[in-house]
Amino acid sequence: MKIHGRHYRTIWIAKDGWSIEVIDQTKLPFAFATKHIASVEDATEAIKSMVVRGAPLIGATGAYGLCLALRVDASDEALDRAYEMLVKTRPTAINLKWALDEMMASVRNRPRGERVAAAYARAAQLCDDDVATNEAIGRHGLAIIEDIAKRKPGKTVNVLTHCNAGWLACVDWGTALAPIYMAHDKGIPIHVWVDETRPRNQGGSLTAYELGAHGVKHSILTDNAGGHYMQHGEVDMCIVGTDRTTASGDVANKIGTYLKALAAKDNNVPFYVALPSSTIDWTIDDGVKEIEIEERSGREITHVQGRTETGEVLTVELTAPGSPARNPGFDVTPARLVTGLITERGTAPATREGLLKLFPERAS
Amino acid sequence: MKIHGRHYRTIWIAKDGWSIEVIDQTKLPFAFATKHIASVEDATEAIKSMVVRGAPLIGATGAYGLCLALRVDASDEALDRAYEMLVKTRPTAINLKWALDEMMASVRNRPRGERVAAAYARAAQLCDDDVATNEAIGRHGLAIIEDIAKRKPGKTVNVLTHCNAGWLACVDWGTALAPIYMAHDKGIPIHVWVDETRPRNQGGSLTAYELGAHGVKHSILTDNAGGHYMQHGEVDMCIVGTDRTTASGDVANKIGTYLKALAAKDNNVPFYVALPSSTIDWTIDDGVKEIEIEERSGREITHVQGRTETGEVLTVELTAPGSPARNPGFDVTPARLVTGLITERGTAPATREGLLKLFPERAS
Repeated sequence: MKIHGRHYRTIWIAKDGWSIEVIDQTKLPFAFATKHIASVEDATEAIKSMVVRGAPLIGATGAYGLCLALRVDASDEALDRAYEMLVKTRPTAINLKWALDEMMASVRNRPRGERVAAAYARAAQLCDDDVATNEAIGRHGLAIIEDIAKRKPGKTVNVLTHCNAGWLACVDWGTALAPIYMAHDKGIPIHVWVDETRPRNQGGSLTAYELGAHGVKHSILTDNAGGHYMQHGEVDMCIVGTDRTTASGDVANKIGTYLKALAAKDNNVPFYVALPSSTIDWTIDDGVKEIEIEERSGREITHVQGRTETGEVLTVELTAPGSPARNPGFDVTPARLVTGLITERGTAPATREGLLKLFPERAS
Repeated sequence: MKIHGRHYRTIWIAKDGWSIEVIDQTKLPFAFATKHIASVEDATEAIKSMVVRGAPLIGATGAYGLCLALRVDASDEALDRAYEMLVKTRPTAINLKWALDEMMASVRNRPRGERVAAAYARAAQLCDDDVATNEAIGRHGLAIIEDIAKRKPGKTVNVLTHCNAGWLACVDWGTALAPIYMAHDKGIPIHVWVDETRPRNQGGSLTAYELGAHGVKHSILTDNAGGHYMQHGEVDMCIVGTDRTTASGDVANKIGTYLKALAAKDNNVPFYVALPSSTIDWTIDDGVKEIEIEERSGREITHVQGRTETGEVLTVELTAPGSPARNPGFDVTPARLVTGLITERGTAPATREGLLKLFPERAS
């Protein structure tokens, strides 16, 4: 998508032809900067520190991390070491493991001398596939927005989203935001309620930044406010991304997603989840019991980064000194609260049967 | 309650015998400071700017605001003018109107020369009544905590609360936190999940400050995280305050309360609301339709106050520059999601019948 009129992806090969550049998302929304990744350690650190974030982009960064490791040492041992280092960075997102497994399958059975080239080719392919997948998700989600728009002709369609599942979370387009961009580009009047998404404010910083840059009308809300607007008929649909969806349709996504899904159910607001099929974990069913939820540092809650009046970006303490904080990064929304899963092959009910109808090759 | 070993109320008469002092809650948790209120304009400003907040304390401040107005001019016109000025400051909290109406009833039919003394006497009585009321609420809520403690002997009782309904929201004791203080003082092992309560962080700043000062174990959470802990059996009960409760038990409270009530229902966690009966608006039934929800400045979301490493307290911008924010201050939790209303006369089901059984004089 475009920033200041220039098209960007979130990750690309640098001019040297081998190292990687990414948009440094810890600097947004106050500064647009890129970060150079020249080793598997750099890639690991970029994922951990959330320079890159969003399940699909984490997968792409992991893939290029393996390429960088192979450049230094193309042995099986080095490959395994790099895989282990990368796969542990963020335990909840399944795309990372999926992308790393795809990479391993592409290089493992090749002679050492061919591994680097094969790895770069596969990583590039994964990125291009992500763009194509999200474009397809966008088209399927657009159909849902068009249906709503038809039922309220001339009126604005209000969509609530949580966290950032836009193009900044992917290689391009985004998952949850792709249908919104397409609807906007088609001239459908649309307004997005953007949950700020504490503690890291991906909504208020990244989603609001993306939507603003593209000219989509939006309002930032605290994570507390969505239910109130749903009670008052001011939300037509919710659409979010996911870090892992089980074979039966339970959805792990950014902490707080579950609360919005409950409010949507309570107010008959349709609640959609947009995802590439690489996000589906076909090996598990019960998301609440089986998905490991990453617990992040309490400092993400007690301290926050912001910009002062003089333009300096710094960190301030928010909470009572000495009080501890607990910081689970994700929660699980049970399938019963999900209206539909928007995938690259179409929209499925959030059930095993629904998913298998779109992905029959997964039936065992 | 105590701060640094000294007992404080949140509001008291200054040494001069007529002006008012309050704890300046905009300075907490980083500094403990008091603020001097010497006119009805000062009182109005203190309520608007949230130097004082919390429904019962707003009522007490409004009462003393009328006293200060009468000192300057004890005419009917001045009285009416002061009433109007004060009652408009915060539209959602009903205690304010209740307290002002009580004051008007006490002074209106007296000769001008007696009004000031009568007003001060009534305001002092309202404050003392608030303390006694909260102490009674604490005892009734304690019984509920004791029941839970009995069912898990030796284990910690985990209570989730939203916003600050502690002694800082009242004259002393608090509503939702009174039972927690009493349980702690009785030696029941208790741990409080403290929702940070964006945008103003009353949880992370005031509730955490209060609990820490009293030695009660607690953890600050983002407002997003409570549902996750309920799904995993780590919340035994929720208890919150309210700014207005309808005659049929719908509860207006700090924005986001509704989402926690939904999660509690979904996970069979009991959800209690603690309130003095002055918070009940006997004139309305349907909270979602009939309670006016205050919309506050979007700047409370886009900017936040915090403390830098060097100890300076300043305001930083959090969100994408140019993106607007919407900021409803409260939401309404329908009675069907409320397990019980803990009042000074005992705990009632959140129904008209339940409330009238405790307050039969309200049956018409």
